[in-house]
Amino acid sequence: MTVHLDELTWVELDQRVRDGPPVVILPAGSLEQHGPHLPLGTDRFMPARLAERIAERIGALVAPALPYGYKSQPKSGGGNHFPGCASLDATTYIHMVRDIICDLARHGLTRIVLFDGHMENQWFLTEASDLALRALRAEGVEGTRIVKLGYWTFITPETEAALFPDGLLSWELEHAAVMETSCMLHLCPDLVRRDLIPDGPPADFPPYDVYPADTGSIPPTGVLSSATGASAEKGRIVVAQVVPDIAAALDTAFQSDQQG
Amino acid sequence: MTVHLDELTWVELDQRVRDGPPVVILPAGSLEQHGPHLPLGTDRFMPARLAERIAERIGALVAPALPYGYKSQPKSGGGNHFPGCASLDATTYIHMVRDIICDLARHGLTRIVLFDGHMENQWFLTEASDLALRALRAEGVEGTRIVKLGYWTFITPETEAALFPDGLLSWELEHAAVMETSCMLHLCPDLVRRDLIPDGPPADFPPYDVYPADTGSIPPTGVLSSATGASAEKGRIVVAQVVPDIAAALDTAFQSDQQG
Amino acid sequence: MTVHLDELTWVELDQRVRDGPPVVILPAGSLEQHGPHLPLGTDRFMPARLAERIAERIGALVAPALPYGYKSQPKSGGGNHFPGCASLDATTYIHMVRDIICDLARHGLTRIVLFDGHMENQWFLTEASDLALRALRAEGVEGTRIVKLGYWTFITPETEAALFPDGLLSWELEHAAVMETSCMLHLCPDLVRRDLIPDGPPADFPPYDVYPADTGSIPPTGVLSSATGASAEKGRIVVAQVVPDIAAALDTAFQSDQQG
Amino acid sequence: MTVHLDELTWVELDQRVRDGPPVVILPAGSLEQHGPHLPLGTDRFMPARLAERIAERIGALVAPALPYGYKSQPKSGGGNHFPGCASLDATTYIHMVRDIICDLARHGLTRIVLFDGHMENQWFLTEASDLALRALRAEGVEGTRIVKLGYWTFITPETEAALFPDGLLSWELEHAAVMETSCMLHLCPDLVRRDLIPDGPPADFPPYDVYPADTGSIPPTGVLSSATGASAEKGRIVVAQVVPDIAAALDTAFQSDQQG
Amino acid sequence: MTVHLDELTWVELDQRVRDGPPVVILPAGSLEQHGPHLPLGTDRFMPARLAERIAERIGALVAPALPYGYKSQPKSGGGNHFPGCASLDATTYIHMVRDIICDLARHGLTRIVLFDGHMENQWFLTEASDLALRALRAEGVEGTRIVKLGYWTFITPETEAALFPDGLLSWELEHAAVMETSCMLHLCPDLVRRDLIPDGPPADFPPYDVYPADTGSIPPTGVLSSATGASAEKGRIVVAQVVPDIAAALDTAFQSDQQG
Amino acid sequence: MTVHLDELTWVELDQRVRDGPPVVILPAGSLEQHGPHLPLGTDRFMPARLAERIAERIGALVAPALPYGYKSQPKSGGGNHFPGCASLDATTYIHMVRDIICDLARHGLTRIVLFDGHMENQWFLTEASDLALRALRAEGVEGTRIVKLGYWTFITPETEAALFPDGLLSWELEHAAVMETSCMLHLCPDLVRRDLIPDGPPADFPPYDVYPADTGSIPPTGVLSSATGASAEKGRIVVAQVVPDIAAALDTAFQSDQQG
Repeated sequence: MTVHLDELTWVELDQRVRDGPPVVILPAGSLEQHGPHLPLGTDRFMPARLAERIAERIGALVAPALPYGYKSQPKSGGGNHFPGCASLDATTYIHMVRDIICDLARHGLTRIVLFDGHMENQWFLTEASDLALRALRAEGVEGTRIVKLGYWTFITPETEAALFPDGLLSWELEHAAVMETSCMLHLCPDLVRRDLIPDGPPADFPPYDVYPADTGSIPPTGVLSSATGASAEKGRIVVAQVVPDIAAALDTAFQSDQQG
Repeated sequence: MTVHLDELTWVELDQRVRDGPPVVILPAGSLEQHGPHLPLGTDRFMPARLAERIAERIGALVAPALPYGYKSQPKSGGGNHFPGCASLDATTYIHMVRDIICDLARHGLTRIVLFDGHMENQWFLTEASDLALRALRAEGVEGTRIVKLGYWTFITPETEAALFPDGLLSWELEHAAVMETSCMLHLCPDLVRRDLIPDGPPADFPPYDVYPADTGSIPPTGVLSSATGASAEKGRIVVAQVVPDIAAALDTAFQSDQQG
Repeated sequence: MTVHLDELTWVELDQRVRDGPPVVILPAGSLEQHGPHLPLGTDRFMPARLAERIAERIGALVAPALPYGYKSQPKSGGGNHFPGCASLDATTYIHMVRDIICDLARHGLTRIVLFDGHMENQWFLTEASDLALRALRAEGVEGTRIVKLGYWTFITPETEAALFPDGLLSWELEHAAVMETSCMLHLCPDLVRRDLIPDGPPADFPPYDVYPADTGSIPPTGVLSSATGASAEKGRIVVAQVVPDIAAALDTAFQSDQQG
Repeated sequence: MTVHLDELTWVELDQRVRDGPPVVILPAGSLEQHGPHLPLGTDRFMPARLAERIAERIGALVAPALPYGYKSQPKSGGGNHFPGCASLDATTYIHMVRDIICDLARHGLTRIVLFDGHMENQWFLTEASDLALRALRAEGVEGTRIVKLGYWTFITPETEAALFPDGLLSWELEHAAVMETSCMLHLCPDLVRRDLIPDGPPADFPPYDVYPADTGSIPPTGVLSSATGASAEKGRIVVAQVVPDIAAALDTAFQSDQQG
Repeated sequence: MTVHLDELTWVELDQRVRDGPPVVILPAGSLEQHGPHLPLGTDRFMPARLAERIAERIGALVAPALPYGYKSQPKSGGGNHFPGCASLDATTYIHMVRDIICDLARHGLTRIVLFDGHMENQWFLTEASDLALRALRAEGVEGTRIVKLGYWTFITPETEAALFPDGLLSWELEHAAVMETSCMLHLCPDLVRRDLIPDGPPADFPPYDVYPADTGSIPPTGVLSSATGASAEKGRIVVAQVVPDIAAALDTAFQSDQQG
Repeated sequence: MTVHLDELTWVELDQRVRDGPPVVILPAGSLEQHGPHLPLGTDRFMPARLAERIAERIGALVAPALPYGYKSQPKSGGGNHFPGCASLDATTYIHMVRDIICDLARHGLTRIVLFDGHMENQWFLTEASDLALRALRAEGVEGTRIVKLGYWTFITPETEAALFPDGLLSWELEHAAVMETSCMLHLCPDLVRRDLIPDGPPADFPPYDVYPADTGSIPPTGVLSSATGASAEKGRIVVAQVVPDIAAALDTAFQSDQQG
């Protein structure tokens, strides 16, 4: 049966909830530039596809992915001024996620994974979780448990070594670079413009941020470090490692919930 | 080339904008019960698929569809208490759409279609448009033009007669009934549970609304009138009529813009 | 004794609540153009006067009417750009009605009728009701029941036939036309400029909406279809039918509340 | 011709604006306990009636009065816990007034008087004015001028002496006491329960406020000092003095505007 | 031991709460012009120093003072257009104080004093208290008691006579004048520019307010009445009187809480 | 002369602005547990003291520090459930900083440094900057430039080696550990409880977050890794390095502004 929540009927979902509420994974993406070689939707395609595979392993459901995220930042995404970025204000984003968590929980879906594919969403997912739990407590809906994760934080040192034989610069600079390009080559090969994968030195940012963004320090491609080391095989290695590891982590995280 | 905005790279989009900004169609869906036979995502699947076909005709782009909408109402959707409904508060919804319109327009995508598949979104799309235009004016972004439509309002009397040989009760009662089921049989046949298409008398609502919802007057299936008259052929007729008609209407709507 | 809540003293109201809380009717109006012949306050005068008569029948109280509503729309009110329109943003309107509902209910007035005279208010009254009920539940105020209605939805086919011997075009196009003009001639005859009642063909709108409003398709008078068929007698017929019918409906709606 | 904005048609208003925009007076009331002898709507009835008389003198228009205000406070109104109080949260109130000011100004009605009848509204009217002016500037609507006043601040020492031969305690303690009762006896005699005018010592409040309200220090009638000295004649004196004085002040305030 | 909450460790605070929660005093200041002789932070320095002395007397803690307040107003602070004013919008201010009250109470610090040094904060502190209590009730946090005060309201007639041998004009006009200058000479002598203490007639305001502010009626120094009568000795008298009186009042206010 | 903005008079500040607007540094702190040995205000004391020294070097002003921050998180601060944490909701925090930026810029102080001492504030400072710049643009206030930094990001590899001879675990785990304790020993020695500096293994967090917080993985002291390696000398080294480096960076950041 499908893992996609929106492909179920309400009768089927109702039965699933009665059988013991399934974990619901909410992929959180963005519409953001990813260089000349990756599509604007990369940050949604990635967590959406990983979530499907994890859901199959643990009997979870995947809620419809959030296609719009928080504003791209120069140091982790190139910046929201690049063509094609369409983002939400922080308060809008927080309330959107809060409302979805609340409505899922009101219908008994109290085990929720915020599965982030866009680094800029992180803190606002945290606030959304806090506001949702506060609202649910006020309504008397008990027992909601939320797990928030970015899939890249599950990459092991071994996988990291396979990805970056010469060492990782930083996850922030990996925007549209080796890791994301490799995973997209593996997961969505038709969406990668292979001939346009850019090379070039990594972005060199000062240890502070400037608003309005100082575009002079951003590589004109929008890619924060070279993606030439990417390969579908590297992507396969990442996916093969993080999918079972995240699945196991979610089992642990929600198991402790059942015992608690 | 793809009509999906999120499958483009920023470089490709940038070129499109320079060539004369394409119309961007934003399908507005929901996660809402649609009876025992249609999936929860019906109100997104429908406008998303229609938008693709329209975009191909007029050279438009389809922005990622909004998967969560305003709260289902008893008289037009059965009500938000049905399992699987996950909706946004009005202010959240308004701000979400406002932010997306604003960011599209800031990047030169000033021709926007709010393509609604969920009746309950309508008034909030209107307010989002008003707030977005006000914000853009304050920022000095000129020339944005927004078209809002529900695809069902384009159904001609001829198509209506084909759908309902015995006459249409009302579009509100068509929730998960003949029209939607027929279109889904045509557009997403694998997602329709044919053996579970419900029959039964139409819902009989009083001429007022009650909050909290008076669930006694809502058919227990969540289907507001019989769907037994549905067929893939009827769906084909609807799609074959509304796609070119909406495409022509958009051409007109944005042409007057160019002249104005 | 007066049916007007604001003409009571707190001691008198306190006694009424102790005797069994009366139904409170909140007329929801607007300040909106109504053609060259009807006053800007038409959408408040109408429900306010109907509410008085209904309140007398069922022992209800009429709360002070809301004089400002949601923004006039071209297809149902001509549009907010007409001189004299003064409207509230959606979030403001929602929160205003939410706060009033909450405070009435906190003081024991838990049977509330949102009595709408302005079509554009409808969905925001719905959201206000939902937010108020959620807030009241969080505070532990139980048992609130809200009925929302537009008086025109109670017009029977017989009355409709009396109003429109040649058939009704649509309720939206009735803005400042035969029904409203007739009722105003009956209820507030001094406020109707009889010699300025406009004629002319009905507005011809496309099946979509455009923002900023496309004023070219709006009749310059602001009247969406001819009002020349209006008469005080027709107004009398409408009032004589809808007042007892709404009164009966409210009795039913709140009776089921007492039993439930 | 009527001074009531909502009794004009849009065509009449349009002509008035073209002739030189009239001053618009917005009475700001409340629904608040006023002792056993004055109606809940006192704070709206008073400024509404005064505004009519002032408008006649200076050719101004009176916008529909705001019937709901900010929460009654123990030291100036007895407190919002008294039956019949129905008030708005501060943010709601601020946004409501902001929206009305903005829409009036957008239609050319840029000379606005916030005519307060409820002491608790004051600071929120100030913030509404500031937010409205900021929003209008951002939209490019120039020249708006707002005057805010409470009619009681115009009472001269002579009138004060006539009202309080033994001296005024404080305006805050005048809630539902000599001044308000006298004015209501003059302006709305049918709404005063003469036989229930309360006597008693003035409320004795500590020099601080407590939340939740310390109801022990509030007189059980809700009247903060004795109203037995009230008379219609005293009301006549107040009205006869403040109406021309406020009219003259508005002439001055908006004249300096024309010169500036 | 220190009275400053932010100088405690969490372990020390935890022990204090277990021993019976101490009163927490939150000084509410502003950054606002105070003439050519007093620093911009006067409205924070004053309540912060008074709060320390009061806290020592009653075993209370002083929370970190709020350095930014609501917008300076012409009649009580000269106006927000003076250089150096940096203020918050009303809703921001309300939510800031609400959040702090809520978090203190959630950690058991349910006895809170809002100790105001800036007249313009008053009504927004009231709303913050109301919203906080509502939120805490919804969360099930019981027993919070908030006392709000402006230290100047505790000045006795005797002290007032010492300050103003010729009589007080009004507390509003005392902005940066005799009382504040005297207290600053006593409490923060190094921050007073003695040679720049201004003289001049008191500001003469009309009995209404104008927005945008009518700067013509504001003394160009920003001082609303002459400060030449100020002296450190007068400041000493004020402090010597109000500190024990406020301490006693707080003891009373929270004692009745324990009994209630 | 003082570097503290709130110790200036408006006349002095006005002169400074006329001479060429000085950089204004806004320290952003929190009230948050910092183990059994550091005070709750650590995250404000640190940036406030560093900002003073930097301001002296570059002729900047230090605005009053923000004493309340965003909610403490388990992985970077132990979590908001520890006694003494008093934090703001994200939207409140964002709007507070937005309002301060806007008012500073409206008065000509358009060179602003958000000087963060509390890791959890970071993303909300970013959003506040974006909203402030958008609002200022709408008002026509041009040229504002905001620099955001956390002082710890300026620590060089050499200083890091001096602090952590055995290597840095991570900056997040440094909460109340070697770096902060060392700096506090140097900057605020009287506020450190030397005898209570805790030892113990670093916190071991899973690569995901759980809400409500999973307190089992948080060290009971609230210190995320051992602080026993701290010394005043290490603190001196940090301060001696970061102060001139940040001063130089600000000179660069605002110099490019002047040229741009």
